[in-house]
Amino acid sequence: MVSKNQIKTITGLQQKKYRKLHKLFFAEGIKVVQELLNSNFELHRLFTTQDIFSELPKDKVDIITEAELKKISALATPNACLALFVVPDEKQVPENGLIVALDDIRDPGNLGTIIRLCDWFGIEHLVCSENCVDVYNPKVVQATMGSITRVNVVYTDLSDYIAKTSLPVFGTFMDGKNIYSEALPKDGIIVMGNEANGISPEIENLVTNKIAIPRFGSLQMTESLNVATAAAITLSEFRRNFESI
Amino acid sequence: MVSKNQIKTITGLQQKKYRKLHKLFFAEGIKVVQELLNSNFELHRLFTTQDIFSELPKDKVDIITEAELKKISALATPNACLALFVVPDEKQVPENGLIVALDDIRDPGNLGTIIRLCDWFGIEHLVCSENCVDVYNPKVVQATMGSITRVNVVYTDLSDYIAKTSLPVFGTFMDGKNIYSEALPKDGIIVMGNEANGISPEIENLVTNKIAIPRFGSLQMTESLNVATAAAITLSEFRRNFESI
Repeated sequence: MVSKNQIKTITGLQQKKYRKLHKLFFAEGIKVVQELLNSNFELHRLFTTQDIFSELPKDKVDIITEAELKKISALATPNACLALFVVPDEKQVPENGLIVALDDIRDPGNLGTIIRLCDWFGIEHLVCSENCVDVYNPKVVQATMGSITRVNVVYTDLSDYIAKTSLPVFGTFMDGKNIYSEALPKDGIIVMGNEANGISPEIENLVTNKIAIPRFGSLQMTESLNVATAAAITLSEFRRNFESI
Repeated sequence: MVSKNQIKTITGLQQKKYRKLHKLFFAEGIKVVQELLNSNFELHRLFTTQDIFSELPKDKVDIITEAELKKISALATPNACLALFVVPDEKQVPENGLIVALDDIRDPGNLGTIIRLCDWFGIEHLVCSENCVDVYNPKVVQATMGSITRVNVVYTDLSDYIAKTSLPVFGTFMDGKNIYSEALPKDGIIVMGNEANGISPEIENLVTNKIAIPRFGSLQMTESLNVATAAAITLSEFRRNFESI
């Protein structure tokens, strides 16, 4: 049973201001919810149409109907369960290893895909500018496919953060050095820019190493790569020289 | 002015069966429409709220209102113009060079992104299984950002095509050989599989070279990469050893 108040609270969590207010976010579907349950994230409450979470404390689980799930879900096709979790505290970002920084990424699918890429490539910290889409946006949570539990995402004044770091700062630009022939270090910050405008001039001034992904073919008409595919190629290049497991 | 009949025909083109029937598809927004106008695609008719296509024959252009554009558009926020183009004939796929083959790619955004990647990496031919999403689906057309004009996309019985080719056939699998240490040729077919199920068993049997993108980090919990990011990394690896322009 879901009360009117609960419906209002949960659908409200689709908006950032209510996630901030309640310090809660939600995830949907057995796979993503199970990944969050198996992590350090703190469960607030779980709503499910199937009694498949018997290991959880009974007072945290509500068995509901499909119709009730539809009322609280953000998905076109709700999928068995919706769980509320406590928004965790941001962890401190160390001054070593590879760190990805995002300058004004607006699309939830792109942020989710980049978190999944960070997880794949063993990158534990993602630093976002304040105007990036919120990581606890339901579309981002779903797109991470559980990777959200293994990547620390922090929001900060990006130019301030980059101005203060002692790490080399990499960014992809059309006129950068060929990423395939550059020696790429084990420690550094990799900046990815906005979907339409790329890296902002303010951040560009702070980039110490401009790199480029070369284009191939005779036509050379492609204007740009999608930010998630550019991130995939860049992270792969940074990792390929080090031992894979 | 857009007639009721035109509205019916154009919105019908959101469905594959009507695109087949009329041999037409549509594109929206100045950037994508301009790229199609500058290509070999044949314009059927253009609807625009701004008189910015003065180089076009007058009998092919209709100046319409924002309200009319909204009635024919497939976008949440229509963008200045919508143009109908003739679906071109598929070109023959040669038996040399790099060719990408898609086994049951269902998501329009993924197909669009992969076409954009092919364009970037100078891959001119993309072979799709019959059950892939249609390349003239409006969401695919928009996601290609114009790259659709530079990549020949054909639909065929994929196992039949792969069974008959003399080219080596590459596919990514968890138990494949490390893509970073394999010698990758200039000629070959690269198969990418379905979003949820990967490459089908039937096609897997025809893959001559199983490759893998290594995972990094200590946790090793990430199940898979999104197909578009996996394609990005794979195409980058195939191209990186050859001279970039």
